[in-house]
Order: sequence, then structure tokens, then C-alpha cells
Amino acid sequence: MTATITAFATSPDRGRGLARDMQVRWALEEVGQPYDVRLVSFQAMKAPAHRAVHPFGQIPTYEDGELSLFESGAIVLHIAERHLGLLPEEPNARARAIMWMFAAVDTLKAPIIEREAAWLIERDKSWFAERQIMLDGNVRKRLGELSVRLGEADWLDGDFSAADIMMVGLLRRLETTSLLDDYPNLLAYVARGKARPAFKRAFAAQYAVFTDSQPVG
Amino acid sequence: MTATITAFATSPDRGRGLARDMQVRWALEEVGQPYDVRLVSFQAMKAPAHRAVHPFGQIPTYEDGELSLFESGAIVLHIAERHLGLLPEEPNARARAIMWMFAAVDTLKAPIIEREAAWLIERDKSWFAERQIMLDGNVRKRLGELSVRLGEADWLDGDFSAADIMMVGLLRRLETTSLLDDYPNLLAYVARGKARPAFKRAFAAQYAVFTDSQPVG
Repeated sequence: MTATITAFATSPDRGRGLARDMQVRWALEEVGQPYDVRLVSFQAMKAPAHRAVHPFGQIPTYEDGELSLFESGAIVLHIAERHLGLLPEEPNARARAIMWMFAAVDTLKAPIIEREAAWLIERDKSWFAERQIMLDGNVRKRLGELSVRLGEADWLDGDFSAADIMMVGLLRRLETTSLLDDYPNLLAYVARGKARPAFKRAFAAQYAVFTDSQPVG
Repeated sequence: MTATITAFATSPDRGRGLARDMQVRWALEEVGQPYDVRLVSFQAMKAPAHRAVHPFGQIPTYEDGELSLFESGAIVLHIAERHLGLLPEEPNARARAIMWMFAAVDTLKAPIIEREAAWLIERDKSWFAERQIMLDGNVRKRLGELSVRLGEADWLDGDFSAADIMMVGLLRRLETTSLLDDYPNLLAYVARGKARPAFKRAFAAQYAVFTDSQPVG
């Protein structure tokens, strides 16, 4: 059975692949699993039919037979557990890969999303500039720690894993800022992720949704 | 071999059990596994020896033989995978339990932690009151959605699971606010979690660290 995921009908980032369906697409491409996509409008996302699958009214979701999931981290982990190639077989290495998935959705993500939300929602507020300095500092602190831990390694812990899908996906949210510039090894890490054929296929698929949604000019 | 976790030597919440070692202790108590605790000072947490285990200089960590982990969600999942009682055996139910663990550290946690951080760090700023209204709204939005989904159920998805440890632990951070008061089913859910003997044993263990650290008066 082919799984069905949901994605934005109208890409809020104009096809930059920052919506969280990107990580799910990438994981499915890495393990060679075809998938169907159901596009949902912002209105439909908040309607009861979608809320029945995703109680918080977001994308992505993942439906495969009787199973329906939300939370991109959980979906990527589910895919990684059911197909070879995204989690190490050795138990301790597997536990560490899952640990890095949690790091990418919790410790690392929190300051990046908070900074981004302020940029989107509070840019016209009197306090914006002063707070942004603090929020940039919070992001830099975590990037510096991640950079030290990554060192010269290609991936977070040994071979490429589901954790790298989540972490590269997160760090890409900073690509339009200068925040990654002080950490050449993180820039190289993101580039390494983006160079993977599976990333490119996933990116192209979500980009096609954006271009298809544009009025013919 | 008995696992060793780390916890704050000096409890920043005066023993209220909001530090993230609480969820790890609770999980270990649920599955009946003894554990050792290494207390770390705020200074030691930032030193190289601790950073070697936790690159972001936080607690808790979990060390068991050759394996060392950080991220409370990952540690609780690791415990749940290795011992019976915290994850359903049926594969789809198991995937949904893990999904709710991700919800507790990602979608639900982000607005709760952001609000809390503003309370701790920005209370003397001119913008605090105006922003707090917005941050309260962000929290209420997610609580409302969670309340609808939980409905009359005892736990997030079927039997008690590792997801409930993470979610109750998160919601407890709101207990000193009035934010939960509009959601009687969430209040009852938190009370249900706190009534579990394993919760009580874990709470007592972390509370003892706080009382032991007090000067004899």
C-alpha cells in the first residue's frame, strides 16, 4: 500500500522546501518508497476532516492503511524503523540517531523557531530590534555547540541517518540569514545533505507544487 | 548494569520536579529499573567532561555501559523500548505513542517554553505585558486543541504510555498559572498522571535532592 502524506496546497515559502512535508518526502525518497500527496488549503487544514488526522491543524500527516500519524519527527522515525537505510542496526548507534532526532525537534529547534516567529509576527513592534539581538544570541549559542560536536564529521553520528534529515531540514531555515556563516562545518553539513539525490528529488517534488499553483502569466 | 542519570545539584525550581530528569526518573520507576544519579552543578554542566556527554551542557543524561544519551524524550523512548509497559505492542498503537512523544517535545512544548522563558528573562522589559498576552494565546490555542483530542479519555492514546509521561511532565509546567483552568479534562489528566505510584516515587527522589541541598537551619 502506498502511503499518503499531506502538504500545503499553497506553499508559504514559495517552494523553498521549508514546510515540514519536506523532511517526510526526503525520508521516503531515501528509502525508495513511492507516496501520494494530498494538498490541503489553509482553510481545510483547520476543518474537522483534517483535524481528525492532525489535532493541531497542521501538515504533514502520514496515512498508511489503518495508521495515521502527525508530527514530522514521528513520521520520519516511523519510516526509518520500517525501511532499511535511515537508522543504524547496532542498538547503541540506533539510540543515538533517535537522540539526535529529538535534539533537532527540541533543543535545537526551539530557538530557531522562536527567532523566526518574531521575524514573521513582531517585525513592526517597538521591541523587535532589541529582542532580535537576544534571539540571534540564543540561536548562535546552540549553533556553536552543534558545530563543536560535529567537528570534521560528515554526519551527526557515523553514517547518514534520519537524524541528519531532521537536522539539515532545521538548519535550512537559517539559510536566508547570516547566522550559519560563522560555522563553516555546519554550512558544509547542510550542503552535504542537499547534495543527496534523495534530497533533490524531494525538493523537486515540493517545488512542483509551488510552480503548479502559480497563475499562468 | 544500573544506568546513571544526571540531575541538577541545586534544583532551580526548589524541588517542584520540573527539571527534565523528572520524566526520566518517572519512566525508570514505571518499568521498575533502579538507577544511579550523578548531581551536577551549573558550573560543571558547562565544563568539558559534561559536554562530552551532553554537547548542549544540560541535564538529564543517561549512561548505561557503552551507551550515553541526552535529550529527555530520547532517553524516555530508549527506556520504553527496552522494558515492557511504556509502549503498546501493537505496531500502529506503538507508532502513535511515539507520535505523541514528539508532540510533547515539539508542537505542544514550543509555546509553553517560550512563554516561560519570557516570564523568566523579560519580565522587566517594557514589552513584557503586551507580549505575554500573545504568548498566553499561543499556549491556550494548543491546550484547546489537545483538550478536544483528549476528550473523556484517560490517556493520550489507549493505555498509559511513555507519551503520557512526556505530556503530563510538560503540562505540569503550567500548574502555577491559570492556563489549564479552562480545560478540566487536562487538569484531570495531569492529576491522573501525578497519582501514579511511579510518579510519586520519582517526585520524592528529586525532591530529596532539593531538601538535602538546603542548609541545616
